[in-house]
Amino acid sequence: MMTSGKTETAEIGKRVKTVYDVVLEGIQRGEWTTRDKLPSVRAMAERLKVHRLTVMKAYQKLVDDGIVEVKYKSGCFVRGAAAGVTQVDSGVDQPWDYQARKVYTNRSRLADIHRLPVDYQMSEALIDPNLLPNMYMSNYVKQIFDLYPKLLSTYSTVMGDLELRESMAVFFMQKQGITAHADELMITTGSQQAIDLVSRSLVKPGDKVLIERPTYSPAIDVFVQQNIRLIPISITPEGYDLEHLEQVMKREKPRLFYMNPTFHNPTGFTVPAGQRKMLVELAERYQCILVEDDVYHDIYFGDPPPPPLFYYDTEGYVIYIRSFSKYVAPGLRISVLAARPSLMNGIAPVKALADNGTPLLNQKIFQHYFFSSRLQEHVAKLRIALQLRKEKMEQLLAGTGWRWTSPSGGLNLWVQLPDGFPVEKLLARCLELSVAFVPGSICDPLGQIEPWIRLSYSYINELQMEEGIRRLIAAAGELRSC
Amino acid sequence: MMTSGKTETAEIGKRVKTVYDVVLEGIQRGEWTTRDKLPSVRAMAERLKVHRLTVMKAYQKLVDDGIVEVKYKSGCFVRGAAAGVTQVDSGVDQPWDYQARKVYTNRSRLADIHRLPVDYQMSEALIDPNLLPNMYMSNYVKQIFDLYPKLLSTYSTVMGDLELRESMAVFFMQKQGITAHADELMITTGSQQAIDLVSRSLVKPGDKVLIERPTYSPAIDVFVQQNIRLIPISITPEGYDLEHLEQVMKREKPRLFYMNPTFHNPTGFTVPAGQRKMLVELAERYQCILVEDDVYHDIYFGDPPPPPLFYYDTEGYVIYIRSFSKYVAPGLRISVLAARPSLMNGIAPVKALADNGTPLLNQKIFQHYFFSSRLQEHVAKLRIALQLRKEKMEQLLAGTGWRWTSPSGGLNLWVQLPDGFPVEKLLARCLELSVAFVPGSICDPLGQIEPWIRLSYSYINELQMEEGIRRLIAAAGELRSC
Repeated sequence: MMTSGKTETAEIGKRVKTVYDVVLEGIQRGEWTTRDKLPSVRAMAERLKVHRLTVMKAYQKLVDDGIVEVKYKSGCFVRGAAAGVTQVDSGVDQPWDYQARKVYTNRSRLADIHRLPVDYQMSEALIDPNLLPNMYMSNYVKQIFDLYPKLLSTYSTVMGDLELRESMAVFFMQKQGITAHADELMITTGSQQAIDLVSRSLVKPGDKVLIERPTYSPAIDVFVQQNIRLIPISITPEGYDLEHLEQVMKREKPRLFYMNPTFHNPTGFTVPAGQRKMLVELAERYQCILVEDDVYHDIYFGDPPPPPLFYYDTEGYVIYIRSFSKYVAPGLRISVLAARPSLMNGIAPVKALADNGTPLLNQKIFQHYFFSSRLQEHVAKLRIALQLRKEKMEQLLAGTGWRWTSPSGGLNLWVQLPDGFPVEKLLARCLELSVAFVPGSICDPLGQIEPWIRLSYSYINELQMEEGIRRLIAAAGELRSC
Repeated sequence: MMTSGKTETAEIGKRVKTVYDVVLEGIQRGEWTTRDKLPSVRAMAERLKVHRLTVMKAYQKLVDDGIVEVKYKSGCFVRGAAAGVTQVDSGVDQPWDYQARKVYTNRSRLADIHRLPVDYQMSEALIDPNLLPNMYMSNYVKQIFDLYPKLLSTYSTVMGDLELRESMAVFFMQKQGITAHADELMITTGSQQAIDLVSRSLVKPGDKVLIERPTYSPAIDVFVQQNIRLIPISITPEGYDLEHLEQVMKREKPRLFYMNPTFHNPTGFTVPAGQRKMLVELAERYQCILVEDDVYHDIYFGDPPPPPLFYYDTEGYVIYIRSFSKYVAPGLRISVLAARPSLMNGIAPVKALADNGTPLLNQKIFQHYFFSSRLQEHVAKLRIALQLRKEKMEQLLAGTGWRWTSPSGGLNLWVQLPDGFPVEKLLARCLELSVAFVPGSICDPLGQIEPWIRLSYSYINELQMEEGIRRLIAAAGELRSC
């Protein structure tokens, strides 16, 4: 039986939540938008017939959740350019539990961590520039200018350079048996732009969007800016729970599912071949577009990964985003977005508005460099170098008792610390020690996933890694003994 | 006195308009959105208590206006990714006359014209690649790679390369007396991206946006995608009617004014120095942001233009978009967006979502090439070459009786044909004759401005121009004698 005190607390909590929800819904509806001032505590209390303290508590929670900010002596203001609210799945058998998440917080937190100049960089999933064949690339660029002396004098088309798109069509066919016409391929300025274009052209406010839990955190921000509702779908070493996924697709009619099924970021998991065709069938049945972000496809440590989901797409339900620049040449920012015409026709006009086409210079350099035999030899060596770094990191962590699934590709280790471990405190201490990593909560659409961290093994060399992991383990030990 | 027949027609016209408006407002409100099916003719007729024929006529007009499309045996569907509706100013003293305009039509029509391979290209405001110092640029790029051997291995920051932003800050100060800290400068992938970022970060659906009439047509599409209301402001050789502008700002409280005050595209007009400070004061008084697109600043044929409006901005009401790549190296796509922190803080997160930063390669090449003395010598020569081409075109048109204001900079002649001249027929005939130009209606937010055309003198050489203009005049003669 509940005590009267508890009932009262629950009642107050309910009223605070009501005020909180009124503001959230007002932001969703557009009653208040970015930089708008909210009504004063007094005015809101009168409007909702509640005590001022209740409004103050609700406003405080909105501040804590990053939705509203306080300006000194001015009041409360709606935050961020795209103050949106997501609604999330709290489980199959429970009622839908809609809760707010922080807007742009992932990206800005991640940027804050990356901005700090640390000696032991394990937070950025980048490849060590010393592993890239810099001299060779420089020489290659010089040759490009002999080939195309007027290269800097002309623009690309919106879809991208036809020569590159035709070469890519041949590459996809030869390497993966994917049939895609050059008109079904668009060149984008990195994968970030491709995800943004998809988000801008295919979802509208109020749409439901499935996203993996955990996921690539900037994608959360890209979709949230469209004021959609995010529904998280768990990813495990065995892929997705397809039965659950089908229930969610059937019931919620999501517009799309943003996924990263190959050497998934941050977990390193790969959705097994057996699920891939079934996923495309589900997409067709429930008319849910699969946005397949394939960023680490070529970074495998053994057998190549299974074919992309796009391989099975004939009805136009998959958008395939293939990134190359990370391991070819980050400075180029070249990715390919592949989609059937029914989808591409919606994306191309937004690319025209966004930048009228990726710079031609970058496309021509990429074209001639990527398809050279020298680059293919480089990638083979890069795979071995990254596998050695991964194995080194695993050795260094072996005695900790921490747990992870050893990835067969990609750049990251997704490590589970003991239950209840204070990850934020660990991060703060590590940054003092010049060590950076990504706390798992940043990768979670719900902002939870507490005792996990993402460690990238691709940026630092083995000597640095020894010292960096030594400091990380020492910091964790200090916290445990507190 | 009206005849009964006319009254009846007017009555039917009114009912058709009602149905038309109901659909438009539904789209604005979000009742129907892109790809949604409209109610059947029967259902809509019942809902609005009108005859089915009335609904059919309204739907037909919506199809004609590009807002809705018919799918065979399926019905009518809302078109385009950003089916928006603009509301426009029909004059100071008249009631506001809200009318629909075609979505994405400008851009797709322009693209259609540009796509045709013609021998006499006067539709694209591009600089003849033969006027750019291609060999020199190629050699320069090679040097860059000696300077930065790992240039391709690293990313830029979201705001752009600090070295370039600091050099730009010095350049703006030395050349134009503009005080802007490096943190107030963002590097974008061309001006198209800068305009798109402004539109995404600073306006919300329903906002009012001022735009020049005529204007740079892709800007119309960029703003319309946000479902805003466009209010046209006429530009003349004397600038704007400031009294009218103040009335509109006061009454309509527009969020921003997108303007191109220097060698304006398409007209070539330059807003006089005397108006510039007053414009910034108006912007501050009515809290209307001025988005100053300065694309032709360095292409002047005599004295340099007056200082940008941004020169007068201390309170953070001007966003200055300065394009360089057109005359430096189109293949690079480098522009600078300058704004005070209050505005920049809203734009930077959207740039992060859009592409996480312009490719570093392009920024480093631009940096070292743009600030070389050789480039500055090149620009001086380019001005003379373009002035000669402009004068040549004016000589060739001298006998036609057509009218234009001779521009003192930029790439275009804005030419008025005789009243009632069938410009669309002229374009069709010219395209048959392998001659391309831009019909004035494309540059008009209202889609009217009928007997005007934009002729670019920058792309074709003088010999080509002689033949191209000869064919244009002959085609016009044919049409006149019909």
